[in-house]
Amino acid sequence: MKFNIEYKDTGSNARAGTISTAHGNIQTPIFMPVGTQGTVKGVHQHELENTIKAQIILGNTYHLYLRPGTEILKKAGGLHKFMCWDKPILTDSGGYQVYSLKGMRKITEEGVKFQSHIDGSRHFFSPESVMDVQRIIGADIVMAFDECTPYPCEYKYARNSMHMTHRWLVRCINRMNTTDPEYDFDQTFSPIVQGSTFPDLRKESAEFIAAQDQDLNAIGGLSVGEPHEDMYAMTELVCGILPADKPRYLMGVGLPENILESIALGIDMFDCVLPSRNARHGILYTKNGLINIKNAKWQDDFSPIDADSDAPTSRIHTKAYLRHLFKVEELLAGQIATIQNLSFFLWLVSESRRKITEGSFNSWKSQMVKAVSQRL
Amino acid sequence: MKFNIEYKDTGSNARAGTISTAHGNIQTPIFMPVGTQGTVKGVHQHELENTIKAQIILGNTYHLYLRPGTEILKKAGGLHKFMCWDKPILTDSGGYQVYSLKGMRKITEEGVKFQSHIDGSRHFFSPESVMDVQRIIGADIVMAFDECTPYPCEYKYARNSMHMTHRWLVRCINRMNTTDPEYDFDQTFSPIVQGSTFPDLRKESAEFIAAQDQDLNAIGGLSVGEPHEDMYAMTELVCGILPADKPRYLMGVGLPENILESIALGIDMFDCVLPSRNARHGILYTKNGLINIKNAKWQDDFSPIDADSDAPTSRIHTKAYLRHLFKVEELLAGQIATIQNLSFFLWLVSESRRKITEGSFNSWKSQMVKAVSQRL
Repeated sequence: MKFNIEYKDTGSNARAGTISTAHGNIQTPIFMPVGTQGTVKGVHQHELENTIKAQIILGNTYHLYLRPGTEILKKAGGLHKFMCWDKPILTDSGGYQVYSLKGMRKITEEGVKFQSHIDGSRHFFSPESVMDVQRIIGADIVMAFDECTPYPCEYKYARNSMHMTHRWLVRCINRMNTTDPEYDFDQTFSPIVQGSTFPDLRKESAEFIAAQDQDLNAIGGLSVGEPHEDMYAMTELVCGILPADKPRYLMGVGLPENILESIALGIDMFDCVLPSRNARHGILYTKNGLINIKNAKWQDDFSPIDADSDAPTSRIHTKAYLRHLFKVEELLAGQIATIQNLSFFLWLVSESRRKITEGSFNSWKSQMVKAVSQRL
Repeated sequence: MKFNIEYKDTGSNARAGTISTAHGNIQTPIFMPVGTQGTVKGVHQHELENTIKAQIILGNTYHLYLRPGTEILKKAGGLHKFMCWDKPILTDSGGYQVYSLKGMRKITEEGVKFQSHIDGSRHFFSPESVMDVQRIIGADIVMAFDECTPYPCEYKYARNSMHMTHRWLVRCINRMNTTDPEYDFDQTFSPIVQGSTFPDLRKESAEFIAAQDQDLNAIGGLSVGEPHEDMYAMTELVCGILPADKPRYLMGVGLPENILESIALGIDMFDCVLPSRNARHGILYTKNGLINIKNAKWQDDFSPIDADSDAPTSRIHTKAYLRHLFKVEELLAGQIATIQNLSFFLWLVSESRRKITEGSFNSWKSQMVKAVSQRL
C-alpha cells in the first residue's frame, strides 16, 4: 500500500491524497460504507460502485467469522470474490463486537473467550487468530485486535486496557510478519491508538503506535458517547504524533459535522454505520440538513427527496412517496434512503477533497458544519 | 385501448399481440408484477423497467385507498406520478382483499362494509365508489368490483355470488360511462367472469361478460386452491366464449407451468404475487426448475444463481453468496431473489411470445412445463 499526499489545505491540517492498494486506488479523504456481513444492507454492489461511488467498504471480522465462516470464505477465494466486490475492503478486528457481548465474553491476556450472539456457541479470539481470520477474509487492510474502551471509562481501566492493546499489537504484527497472504495480493496492517479521553494516555498510545512504523494508522475508542469537543481534542492530539506521511483512519466516525471537523484535523479515512442504519429509520442526510421523512409534514410534499443528490432515485422520487413507503414499511423505503445517505456521505468527502485541492476547504467547512446539522 | 393480434399459434389457441394504452404498448402474452402499495417489494422502478423488463404492473385498490389514500394520490396527479412509473398500470378492484378480511366485513347488495386491517377503522366499498377510487388512482386498466368465491364453494353460494357480481358489473359500467377520467388519459374497464369450478355457471358468466362488449375481459376466482385440471378446464371453457379479438386476463395465475398451459388456452395477461413473495422466502424460479436457496446443499456452490438469467445480479452472484444472505437475513437476499424471479417470469412470457411468432410454441411449451416444475 502506498499513500501519496497531493494537496495540503492552507487554513487547516486537511490533506488530499491517494492510497494505492492491490484492488485499486482510494482518493482521500474517504468514507467507507459498512458492509457487516458481506453486503451493505439494502444496496446492490453495482449501486455501491456506480451510484454511491464507494471506493472502499468495511467488513466485520466477528460477523464474517461466524457466518458464512472461514471455510466458505476460503473456498470462495476470499470476501472480494464471495460478494463480487473487486475494490478495496478493510476489515475491523472483531474487537469492538466481542466486547459488546456483555456477559457473554471474558477478556484475558491471551485473548477473548466469547459466545456467539446467534446460537451461544463458544469461541476464542486472540491477536494471532484474528490476523489469521483476516488473512482468510482477504481484506486489503487488516486492523489490529484491540480493546475499545467505553465512555466514560476509569483512568486506571483505560491505562491497563491500552497497555494490553499495545502488547496485543506486538503479537498482531508478529503474526502478520510470519504469515503469508492467503491469496495473490498483499494486505496492509493498521495498528490502533487507544487511551480513552485521557490526553497523557492518548499521547503514550500514539507514540507507541507511531513507533511501529506501519503503512496506515488508526484512532479507535472515539465516537463512543464522549462530547464532540473531547473527540476533536483527542483526534488533534493524536494526529500531531502519528506520522504525517501515512493515512490516518478515525474509526466509527461519525456525523457529517464530525467528519468535516476531523478532516480539518488531518484525518483521511472514516467509517460509520450511522448513514445506513439511520436511513432504515427514515433519517435522511442532505447538504441542507437532516430530514425525518416519517414526519407528517412531508405527506404531501411532492418536491424531490434531495434535488442535489448524486443518486437518481433521490432526484426522481418525492418526499411524499418516500414517506408513504416508510409508513407502509416497504423494503424500498430503506433502499432509497440508504442510497441517499451513503451518496451524501461520499459526496461530502469528495467535495471536501475538491475544496482542499482548491485551497478553500476551511471556510467551506465552517459553512457546511452549520448547514448539515440543521433539522429540516 | 386497442388490441392487435399479430400471430396465432398453429398447435394451440395461443396468440401474440400488442395492447396499446395511453402509457405505451404491452406485448402479449404478458405477466404483470404486483406492486401492492405503489412499489414492487424490494425492487427499484428502474430495475423493474430495465432489468426485469416489466411492461405493466398491478396496483391494489384496497391498499392504495387506505395508504396513502385518495387525497394524496389526487394531489400527486395519480399513481403513475406518485410512484414514478410511466408505463401502464392495472388496478384490481379491492374485492379480493376485502373478502379476505374474514370477520371484519359484511357483504350486502349495496356493497361491502369492512374494517381496515391496519387500525380497524370502518369503510364502505360499492361498485360505484371503487370505480371512483380507481379513477383517482388513475390506472390504465380498471377492474370491476366482484366477489371472488373461495375453493371449495357450494354451488348455490357460487351461483348467487356470480349473479350479484353481474348486477355489480352493470353498476360499475354505468359509473364508468357517466364519469370522466381524473387525469388527461383514457382508462379501460375490464369485467370479470366468476362461477367457481361449475361449468354451467362459468358458461353463464362468460356469456354475460362477453355481452358487455368491453375492450378487455378477465377471468377471476381461479388459482384459489382448486386442482390445476379444474383451473385449465374452466379457463378453456371461458376462453371459448369470450371474444377472441379482445385480450383475456387470467387473474392471480400463477405457477410457471400454469402460465404456459393457460397461454396455450388463449390467455394474454397474468398477474401473481408468487414470484415476488416466494423470492423473499428463498424460492427461486429458473428455466431448469425450482431452487430452495436456503438448502445446505448450496452453501459452497459457487456457480451463478442462474447463468441463463436476464438479470446481471443472478449471473454475477453465486448460489453460496445468496444462500449466505438468506441465512443472515440480509435485505439484499430478497432484492436479488425478487429480481431473479420476476426476470424469469417476464422471460417466460416473452419467450412464449417468440415461440408463438415462430409457430413452435406448443412443442416448446410441453418441454418447458416439465422443466420448470422440477426441484433442483
